[in-house]
Amino acid sequence: MKKSIRAFAPATVANVSCGFDILGFAIDELGDQVEVSLRETPGLEVIHIAGDNGKLPYESEKNTCTVAIQAMLQALNYQGGMEISLYKGLPLGSGMGSSAASAAAALVAANALLGYPFDKKSLVNFAVEAERIACGAAHADNVAPSLLGGFVLIRDYHPLDVIKLPVPKGLFCTLLHPHLELNTADSRSVLRKQISLKDATIQSGNIAGLISGLYQADFGLISRSLKDVIAEPTRALLIPGFYELREAIQSIGALGSGISGSGPTIFVLSPSRKIAGEVEKIGRKVYQKVGLEVDIYISEINDKGAYVI
Amino acid sequence: MKKSIRAFAPATVANVSCGFDILGFAIDELGDQVEVSLRETPGLEVIHIAGDNGKLPYESEKNTCTVAIQAMLQALNYQGGMEISLYKGLPLGSGMGSSAASAAAALVAANALLGYPFDKKSLVNFAVEAERIACGAAHADNVAPSLLGGFVLIRDYHPLDVIKLPVPKGLFCTLLHPHLELNTADSRSVLRKQISLKDATIQSGNIAGLISGLYQADFGLISRSLKDVIAEPTRALLIPGFYELREAIQSIGALGSGISGSGPTIFVLSPSRKIAGEVEKIGRKVYQKVGLEVDIYISEINDKGAYVI
Repeated sequence: MKKSIRAFAPATVANVSCGFDILGFAIDELGDQVEVSLRETPGLEVIHIAGDNGKLPYESEKNTCTVAIQAMLQALNYQGGMEISLYKGLPLGSGMGSSAASAAAALVAANALLGYPFDKKSLVNFAVEAERIACGAAHADNVAPSLLGGFVLIRDYHPLDVIKLPVPKGLFCTLLHPHLELNTADSRSVLRKQISLKDATIQSGNIAGLISGLYQADFGLISRSLKDVIAEPTRALLIPGFYELREAIQSIGALGSGISGSGPTIFVLSPSRKIAGEVEKIGRKVYQKVGLEVDIYISEINDKGAYVI
Repeated sequence: MKKSIRAFAPATVANVSCGFDILGFAIDELGDQVEVSLRETPGLEVIHIAGDNGKLPYESEKNTCTVAIQAMLQALNYQGGMEISLYKGLPLGSGMGSSAASAAAALVAANALLGYPFDKKSLVNFAVEAERIACGAAHADNVAPSLLGGFVLIRDYHPLDVIKLPVPKGLFCTLLHPHLELNTADSRSVLRKQISLKDATIQSGNIAGLISGLYQADFGLISRSLKDVIAEPTRALLIPGFYELREAIQSIGALGSGISGSGPTIFVLSPSRKIAGEVEKIGRKVYQKVGLEVDIYISEINDKGAYVI
């Protein structure tokens, strides 16, 4: 019998407000599954992809699952072969860490298949290689929370310094994903290359406040800190409904909102499931006005990350 | 008998590396004392200043003690008068929060004299008014730690949002104060007004890492995070011995170094009193080579702040 293992990895929110490029968190339930099997012939082969509407590549040098596993096998100097089946649960290009979830699930399955030569934190190094292929940049603020769960800080990339942060109890996320494709290149090109010293200092104060708020489980401090003066002011212009939603949820007790990844998905943090549900109701009205179909997910922050099924 | 109260407020390190403009901490023992007495005639009067070599002003609209107390009395709509004596323990213009310590001690004494109408955190609001007079900017990263002790984050100024952070046990500071006057205006003028997005992101990662390191009492993480890519690269050029000291202490187990305030004082953090002592020895050699007299202080991080004597 062929030995095979299937793993799940969750959706993630990267670029968490003032944590532009350095902070991400994981969502419950929503995610990708990858099944990996050992085979006798060497090399990696994607044998099946489902749920992608035929958009993802089977070529092993382009598929995020195989690129991630290949990086891991190289580190092990492993000579055998593997077959990979990818079951997408996440929409592509939505800003919910779709490519990261595929890479994370692939690595967790392959690592288990080989008897756990690596801990999950080490797998982040291989997953960023897949992000380099998928996104053109080896960013880790999706793959790290998808693997590890919870809030994850990427302090540095050279070398990678990944810090798992505490998740306050009762913190909920509402993810609002409008049916709209956003060009990632556009989204990157609107970023200012130069920031004023004043804005850089404001951003530092807010990320420092957000980290403190997570450690202290202080929802007030988290809320006051959820402000991005660097990426959001230009990126939000590309995202229909962004400011309308922010205004509409202002008085219901949500902690704050931001662009998930580079959008078009928007995340809203709330101090209870009840308020996260209110956000959903209001969100449906806002997107109706804007004239866009929308999928809305409510989730506690997922503190577990990717796992073998 | 005339009622009078004397208070002490400690020296502080502001602009703590990647915490430029938002993070400060307090030092033990070294600091200023202020004695405040009630009197029948209204108004505030500085009746004595010692330890300043005649450099500080007696005029109540220019002295940091009276400006701070005046802001407090205005908030209380208090009509009585006070007499103030200031005993400087801190050198002026050294980057060790000299004006902040005077204002903090004055406020703690006057607040006690009036029966504690304010808690210490509220006093920060009045102390920044004194900083506006003394430094030309209402910065709070000296006055807040001088009042509250420990590491203090200034998340925002509008309104003031002051967050006390935990102090890891065993964390020591070596302060090296060369006998050299640095023009604060020069020190501010060398700051770049525009920062690259890349540097702003690196700084965010490091301040987020430093805050996490303080909460986790993780000396390794604190050490990796003590990097300032915004102010230090230009300011350090004005500070003789800065890079020589950094290089000389590289291999003895110190956590990192930075400019205290806007200099010329340098702070070095260490994971034990023993290593902080090694830093002192090496520091004496470095400044001898550079050709500057130096005062060196070793202190645990002061978690108590200003207090009534």
